[in-house]
Parts: sequence; C-alpha cells; structure tokens
Amino acid sequence: MQRESETNRLEAFSDGVMAVVITIMAFNVKSPAGATLTDLHRVAPELLVYVLSFAMIGIYWNNHHHLLRATERLDGAVMWANLHLLFWLSLMPLVTAWIGRYPVHALPAACYGVVGLGCAIAYWVLVRRIISANGENSVVARAIGKDFKGNISLVCYLVGTGIAFVAPLASYGIYASVAVMWFVPDRRLAPSPEAEPGAG
Amino acid sequence: MQRESETNRLEAFSDGVMAVVITIMAFNVKSPAGATLTDLHRVAPELLVYVLSFAMIGIYWNNHHHLLRATERLDGAVMWANLHLLFWLSLMPLVTAWIGRYPVHALPAACYGVVGLGCAIAYWVLVRRIISANGENSVVARAIGKDFKGNISLVCYLVGTGIAFVAPLASYGIYASVAVMWFVPDRRLAPSPEAEPGAG
Amino acid sequence: MQRESETNRLEAFSDGVMAVVITIMAFNVKSPAGATLTDLHRVAPELLVYVLSFAMIGIYWNNHHHLLRATERLDGAVMWANLHLLFWLSLMPLVTAWIGRYPVHALPAACYGVVGLGCAIAYWVLVRRIISANGENSVVARAIGKDFKGNISLVCYLVGTGIAFVAPLASYGIYASVAVMWFVPDRRLAPSPEAEPGAG
Amino acid sequence: MQRESETNRLEAFSDGVMAVVITIMAFNVKSPAGATLTDLHRVAPELLVYVLSFAMIGIYWNNHHHLLRATERLDGAVMWANLHLLFWLSLMPLVTAWIGRYPVHALPAACYGVVGLGCAIAYWVLVRRIISANGENSVVARAIGKDFKGNISLVCYLVGTGIAFVAPLASYGIYASVAVMWFVPDRRLAPSPEAEPGAG
Repeated sequence: MQRESETNRLEAFSDGVMAVVITIMAFNVKSPAGATLTDLHRVAPELLVYVLSFAMIGIYWNNHHHLLRATERLDGAVMWANLHLLFWLSLMPLVTAWIGRYPVHALPAACYGVVGLGCAIAYWVLVRRIISANGENSVVARAIGKDFKGNISLVCYLVGTGIAFVAPLASYGIYASVAVMWFVPDRRLAPSPEAEPGAG
Repeated sequence: MQRESETNRLEAFSDGVMAVVITIMAFNVKSPAGATLTDLHRVAPELLVYVLSFAMIGIYWNNHHHLLRATERLDGAVMWANLHLLFWLSLMPLVTAWIGRYPVHALPAACYGVVGLGCAIAYWVLVRRIISANGENSVVARAIGKDFKGNISLVCYLVGTGIAFVAPLASYGIYASVAVMWFVPDRRLAPSPEAEPGAG
Repeated sequence: MQRESETNRLEAFSDGVMAVVITIMAFNVKSPAGATLTDLHRVAPELLVYVLSFAMIGIYWNNHHHLLRATERLDGAVMWANLHLLFWLSLMPLVTAWIGRYPVHALPAACYGVVGLGCAIAYWVLVRRIISANGENSVVARAIGKDFKGNISLVCYLVGTGIAFVAPLASYGIYASVAVMWFVPDRRLAPSPEAEPGAG
Repeated sequence: MQRESETNRLEAFSDGVMAVVITIMAFNVKSPAGATLTDLHRVAPELLVYVLSFAMIGIYWNNHHHLLRATERLDGAVMWANLHLLFWLSLMPLVTAWIGRYPVHALPAACYGVVGLGCAIAYWVLVRRIISANGENSVVARAIGKDFKGNISLVCYLVGTGIAFVAPLASYGIYASVAVMWFVPDRRLAPSPEAEPGAG
C-alpha cells in the first residue's frame, strides 16, 4: 500500500506528460494544405519523424513502467531525477517539429540527437537514483544489472549527433536503430518482481 | 491488487492520450472568423466532423475500459499492442482537421478511413494479445467470443476507404454507421466479470 | 474495492479531459503582441472570459467529484452520459476563444450560452443515469434530492442565451451568476457519505 | 483507504493540469525558422525562460506531492484553494511565452512576477486550508511549522515584480533564486509521515 501510494503519483504525472507529448507531436504535423496526393506527399517527412518520435516516447513509457514496478522506495532525489527526464522528453515535440520541416539539414538532426542524448542520460541518472534509494541488493538493482542497453544508447546518440553534421539522414538511421534495440522491453524487469520480493 | 496495479497504469496512460486527443480535436476547430451566422455556418463541417471523431474516440475509450476490466494478466506484447492502438488514435486529430477543411474531396475522406482501419486493426490485435496473455479459457477470451462487431468494423472501414474515391460523402455515412453500431458497449463484457472469476 | 476500480477510471478520464480543457483555454489567450500596457489591455477581455470559463470547468470538476464519491454503481448508460458531458465541456475552449475575440457581439455570447446549456443538461442527465443505476433509495439519490441548483442553472442559461441577442454583456452577467451560485459545493453531497452507507 | 480515495482525485487532477502546463509551455517555444545556428540562437531566450518555468512547475508539483502525502482530510475549502492554485499555474504558459518574446522589457517581466506571486499566495492559502481541515495538531500542521520558505517566496516575487520596472533582467535573477531555494523538497515533509501518524 505504501509502495502503491508512493510510486503511483510519480507514474501518474509522468504518464500525463508523456501522453501530452505524444499528442502534441501528432498535432504538430499540420494537416496537408490541399486535398491532392502531392499535398499529402509533402507532409510525409513530418509523418515519418513523428513515427520515430512516437516510438521513442513509447519505449521510454514502457521502460519507465517496468522500472517503477520493480521499485519499492522513492526519495527526493528520485523525484528530481524523474522531473529531469520529463524535461528532456518535453523537448521532443520541439525538435521533432524542427526536423520535420528541415529533414536534410545538419543542425536540426544534431539537435534531435542532443535531446535524445539528454533523455538517455536522464534515464540513466533516474535508474542510479532509484537503485541508490532501494539499496544495491534490492530487486530493482539486481534486475538492472550492468544496463548494457542504456550504455549502448548513450554511445549511439553521441555518434548520431556527430554524424548529423556530415550526413543528417545517416544519423536518423542511428536514432531509429536505438529505438529498434529498445523495442523489446527489458527482459530483466519483465517477470513480475513483486512475486519474489526477497528472492536471491 | 496485482491485477489492479498491472492494468491501472496501462489504463491511465491510454486515458491520458485519449483525453488529449479529444481536446486537441475540439481545439482544432478554429473559432469563427467573425461574429455573424455566416461565419458560424462556415465552421459547421468542422464541427460535424468533430462530432464523428469524438464519437469514435469515445467508443474506443468505452470498449477499452470494458476490455481491460475483464483482463487479469498483461505481458509485454499487450503493452506494445496498446501503444500501437494509441498511435493510430493519435492520428485522428490530423485527419479530422484535414476533412474538416476539405469535406467534399476524395483523398482526405479516404485517409480518414485508413486511420479508422488502423485503429480497428490495432484494437483487434490488442484483443488477440490480451486473450493470448490470459489463456483461451479466461474470462476475457470467453467474453469476446467471435468478435462479430470487430470484424464488421474492419470491413466497413475498408469499404468506406474505397468508396471515398468515388463518393466522399457516402464514405462518411459508412464511418458514422460503424460508430452507431459500436454505440452500445459490448454486452459480452458489460456484466461485471470480476463477480464470477471462475464461472463457466 | 469494486466501487473504487469502477469509478476510478471514469474519474481519471474525466479529470484528464477537464485538465486539458482548462490548459487549452489558457493557452488560447494569445500573449500580448507587444510589451506595453496598451498591448496588455488588449488581451483583457480574453483574460476575463478565461476566468469565467475556468470557474465553470472548476465547478463541474468539483461537483463531478462530489457526485462520483457518493456513487456506488456504474452501468453502460452512466458511461455514455459522462462522455456526453465531456463532449459539451470540450466545446468550451472554442466558444471561450470566440467571445474573447468578439466580446460585444450577440451570436458568440448566445453560443456560449448554448454550450453552457448543453453542459448543464448533460450534467442533469448524468445525475439521472447515476440515480437510476444506484436505485431511488441509494445514498446518491437521497443526497441529490430535488436538485434545485441544477434546475436553476438550466433556466439561467436559457435566459442568458435569449438575452445575448439584445444585450450580450448582460448575458455574461447571467452566466457569471450561475458560476457564483455553484461556487459552494453541494452541501448535500459534501459530508462523506461512505461513512453512512445505510443511514436513513 | 478513505484518505486514499479522498486525496487521490485531487492529486490526479492537479497532476493533469501541471503535466499539460509543462508540455504546452515547451510547445510554445516555436521550432527555429531556419536550420542555421543563427536561427537556433534566436529561440535561446524562449528556451531559457522555458527552463525557468519548467523548474517552477516542477517545484510546485514536488511540494504539492509532499504536502498531500502528509494530508489526512480534505474539505470543500481545500478543493477550491487547490483550484485557485491551478488557475495561477495555468497562466504560466501565457507569461512564459510573453517574456520569451520580449525578454528585456519591463511589463512582461513584471507580469511574470505577478503570476509567480499569485501561485505563491495560492499555495500559501492551500497550506492554511489543509491545516485548518486537519487540525493544528495534525501531522501536516506540525510538519509545515512556520513555513519560512513560503514567506520568503512571497517577498521575493513582490520585490522581483517591483525591480522588473527598472531592471527586467535582474528580476529574472530573483525569480530564479526562488526556484533554487525551493529545489530541495521540504525536509519537514519528506520523511514519510504515514509511518508516525500519532508521533509527537
């Protein structure tokens, strides 16, 4: 019950922000300025970018959900680490709209990578804060383990941001591959950990 | 309790997205560009389209609510199937705004049908994933049965999309009739299934 | 527990819609087109209208909250009655933006009254559906009683809509007085009814 | 359980409004009107202001969360006091957009201070209403104590609003220092008070 009431509101607020971020991004894709195939074709880059950004937010929601289900205790530092993650996620509609309009330019593609990197670092920090609040032997700590995927993501966004300056389209490929990698939710956290709170 | 905490967050996030989708669609209807009856008349198509789209989102919310109340177990595949449904629902404001502005054109009417079809397929997939996670003998599996309405919806959207190319207004009639058909919530799931978890 | 899980999602979805409606209305008030007092002055009508609409949504949220806390059972009809209320509430940003831009014109003022009337009727229907689902002797039925305020509101919006055609500003006074009347939450429902579920 | 169901919906609605306020503010930062560094540079003031406003909303969310976790009873006055706080918070996107566009002007900077002051007063009133509903000897009353930070905030916003008329940039410094001061959540409320409901 305690756990419930502690984590519930953190989840509810995070869900609220992520739900609005997704819907605002879709809303940012302006409806075509005519009723012909050419008009529809013109919004294609924006739609494709929206699919990528939707996948990214969806992945964060999914991982966030699994992470908090394994979490037993929160403290002030976890609260701030979570807000920090929401801050970076809330910048997604901005960079999504920007690369939707300038899909073959270097700077927007690089900034998308910077925001992606910010999200990944913020998530990494959140995981550390949660482990620190729950102890190194807690369910969540043992479940996370070495966090291979988290480290790979950081490197990918860093590389993608750099490559954006020479080949913007290639950087989208790298960002998309991060999304694909995360697509399968963390097997580490998926099996209901509540069922074995004290298991070794 | 387990069921509660598992399904609650899925419901909360889905509710968040659907609540914002509804409000964004209403917000998309621009306030009339003057204070005369003619100005009000000019936004009439957008208002009518909003009523149709509101009904569709409302129906999905209602069915989603009844579906998840009968659900006992979730797994990763259900999570993704749900996000997939939210993706299609999040495109509703875009196509709603488009046909609001080009109500008698073929392509916007057809795209509305495509998004409606996407929603219907995604809901169908979600139902399959939930049944697969809960077992063929679960409350939800027996409650869904042959899913007559779901199959009819798929056919209607397919037909509506095709007809849009020759008679856009007729396709709206087909989309509206899908809404009317779903208006009555699934009798199959309505009687509180928690009251009879093991009933045959 | 049953009651909890039944009403919780209805409340959560309604809260989501009302929260977004409020924020979208505030967002609709464009930031002044300059940095002088004159520029600030120009958005004054929009700000005043926002205060009125915020009060109305706040009152609905408050009454909705008290109503559902006294509710023990929901059925399909309650679901649809609630969606119907949300539909009318979702039109508030549209009419709010309209009268914010045309504050001394008849038609926008009358349409604001029509939407207010739609909300009031929808709330009245919702109350009837809830009483019908809970029985004439339920806590909520006895608590609502004759619903004096509800009936007064309907009459006020009707009168306000009519008066708007001859004196728009007077109609705002009537709409505002409805808000003031509702400001005190229903004493009938306020004392925690869960504490006396079978009390006469 | 009673406490849960009473405070849960107040929290959920407040979370909804704050989540949308944050996302709308981010959405208000228009994506750059080009793909060069100069274009990015032009949105820098808006981004910086967004960071400040995000921090403010985040702090209110955090303190609100800690405040309500220590709260055992709500009444009608608490409901209205909470809506009053949400009203002022909902004006944040408006003033944020305004100073983002006119960052070196007096009036927008002063209005930002007025809205900040409104939020601070509304939070102060909410705390008083909650203490009044829970009794002077309640957990929340003893936890709040003299509310040193709350009083400091009021003075800072008052001073900042005044200084805005002579040195707008200096007033931002004062607003930011309020944010920094609140950054650490109330130590008074942080240690889980549920664990010691009757402790002296």
